[in-house]
Amino acid sequence: MAKIVECVPNYSEGRDLAKIEKIVAPFKEDTRIELLGVEPDGDYNRTVVTVMGEPEIIAEAVIRSIGIAAEVIDMNVHKGEHKRMGATDVVPFIPIKDMSIEECNELSKKVGKEVWERYQVPIFLYENTASAPNRVSLPDIRKGEYEGMKEKMLLPEWTPDFGERAPHPSAGVTAVGCRMPLIAFNINLDTADVEIAKKIAKAIRFSSGGFRHIQAGPAEIKEKGFVQVTMNIKDFKKNPIYRVFETVKMEAKRYGVNVTGSEIIGAVPMEAIVESLAYYLGVEDLGMNKILESKLIK
Amino acid sequence: MAKIVECVPNYSEGRDLAKIEKIVAPFKEDTRIELLGVEPDGDYNRTVVTVMGEPEIIAEAVIRSIGIAAEVIDMNVHKGEHKRMGATDVVPFIPIKDMSIEECNELSKKVGKEVWERYQVPIFLYENTASAPNRVSLPDIRKGEYEGMKEKMLLPEWTPDFGERAPHPSAGVTAVGCRMPLIAFNINLDTADVEIAKKIAKAIRFSSGGFRHIQAGPAEIKEKGFVQVTMNIKDFKKNPIYRVFETVKMEAKRYGVNVTGSEIIGAVPMEAIVESLAYYLGVEDLGMNKILESKLIK
Repeated sequence: MAKIVECVPNYSEGRDLAKIEKIVAPFKEDTRIELLGVEPDGDYNRTVVTVMGEPEIIAEAVIRSIGIAAEVIDMNVHKGEHKRMGATDVVPFIPIKDMSIEECNELSKKVGKEVWERYQVPIFLYENTASAPNRVSLPDIRKGEYEGMKEKMLLPEWTPDFGERAPHPSAGVTAVGCRMPLIAFNINLDTADVEIAKKIAKAIRFSSGGFRHIQAGPAEIKEKGFVQVTMNIKDFKKNPIYRVFETVKMEAKRYGVNVTGSEIIGAVPMEAIVESLAYYLGVEDLGMNKILESKLIK
Repeated sequence: MAKIVECVPNYSEGRDLAKIEKIVAPFKEDTRIELLGVEPDGDYNRTVVTVMGEPEIIAEAVIRSIGIAAEVIDMNVHKGEHKRMGATDVVPFIPIKDMSIEECNELSKKVGKEVWERYQVPIFLYENTASAPNRVSLPDIRKGEYEGMKEKMLLPEWTPDFGERAPHPSAGVTAVGCRMPLIAFNINLDTADVEIAKKIAKAIRFSSGGFRHIQAGPAEIKEKGFVQVTMNIKDFKKNPIYRVFETVKMEAKRYGVNVTGSEIIGAVPMEAIVESLAYYLGVEDLGMNKILESKLIK
């Protein structure tokens, strides 16, 4: 069965629908591509596109789309509330099926190289595909934004992975890389005390010494009178849903508080669900090969 | 997205591979059909075939395959350890995706009617598609087997749903109907005492007053020194995995015994996994629409 990759390119145009239409055309033209979302945001002046399909097919369409964005977007006149550094700002590739992180890294590098060669937009490889620790995090790469790139790229530590040490004169710079699918997961507590949610969030998140792949914080759900621990699971294989959930339950006990439920925002990979249920049932060999539908995904 | 049905026809030939090849040819000829298994059994003298695909496509191939089986199998000379009443003995249709039981019943009826009209093999509709309570269960319909059908079908309560009141002279009778996917699920106990497994099995199975869609019994795993409660979940929507699992845990406590794990045999529908994890995490709206890959199943 075929490998499947998801790609979520972010373009610095969220207002001019005719331009956005041109940018997404390569995804619409190929029926083998699943175009799952086109989300323009006027305030951000930015559009997030979500596509899935076979790696080679997605790669070629993404490259062409980046070329079109470089033609129709001029970063010299771009304004928006979201930080940005390029006409195509960032291109995350997410391995969905039968694809290793290594393969996804290779795909990202291939796309980056090709974009430079075809359109002369310099590329930083980021996240799993980063070539140095200082360029793993997108905010670090993007710091200074489009306007600051000219100067920043002269610094030896900010030589791009592909291309010359200067941004494209109108399309800026693009980050390309492989990341794991994010799971946005919120856990409900039977208290209205946001301080308790804050303490639990600190216990589980990486930035305060918790799990390596967890970003977490407190949230008040005022209309319902309770608080949540809200989080992103950045690598569900290394920090599975059940482990975070059970840890939050355990921590909540310290405060005499109970976990009453949880919610998953957006889509979640099947594997994350299967792995977590395997924990609760104590099934050793419950993997994707046991799932009837996995035979239907081509 | 397309509806998906699974079909698991059972043919009364498990030894002559050339004949089996002819019977499965309609499934191999159409690339839109996923042929998941062809399992001949010499002792049973029976072959179980598993196919998945769009309902209309599967239906036509199954009908043609039943016609071929009627040509190549002569029930008058068939011998095997498994009970049987027809060249194609039973044809269960299982709704897998975007398909209601009602739609699956309609499909079963259409196939039954067509088989009678094309090949003059009389049809009993069974399970969810049964036209009377006495013909829900396949063993009830099949009682008397091929040899007894001539007499049995003269009884008013055994008039077939399609066709005349006599078996086909060489292909017998076929049962067609919609059933839910079976989940074969075994729960491990930390005891070697098979009596405890037997008591727990009785507590959960329908035949002893337990859950409506559970068949269960004890099993000794001698080489590992423990026992299991082994079961079929016949309708995972009405008797979800988690509920049976937690009930077995609860019952085990009476005997000072613990559940140490479980195993799932064969394939399980994604929905069954999602629904059970939703219980453990207390997620209200965790459904198939939240699963990334469900967008890839065509």
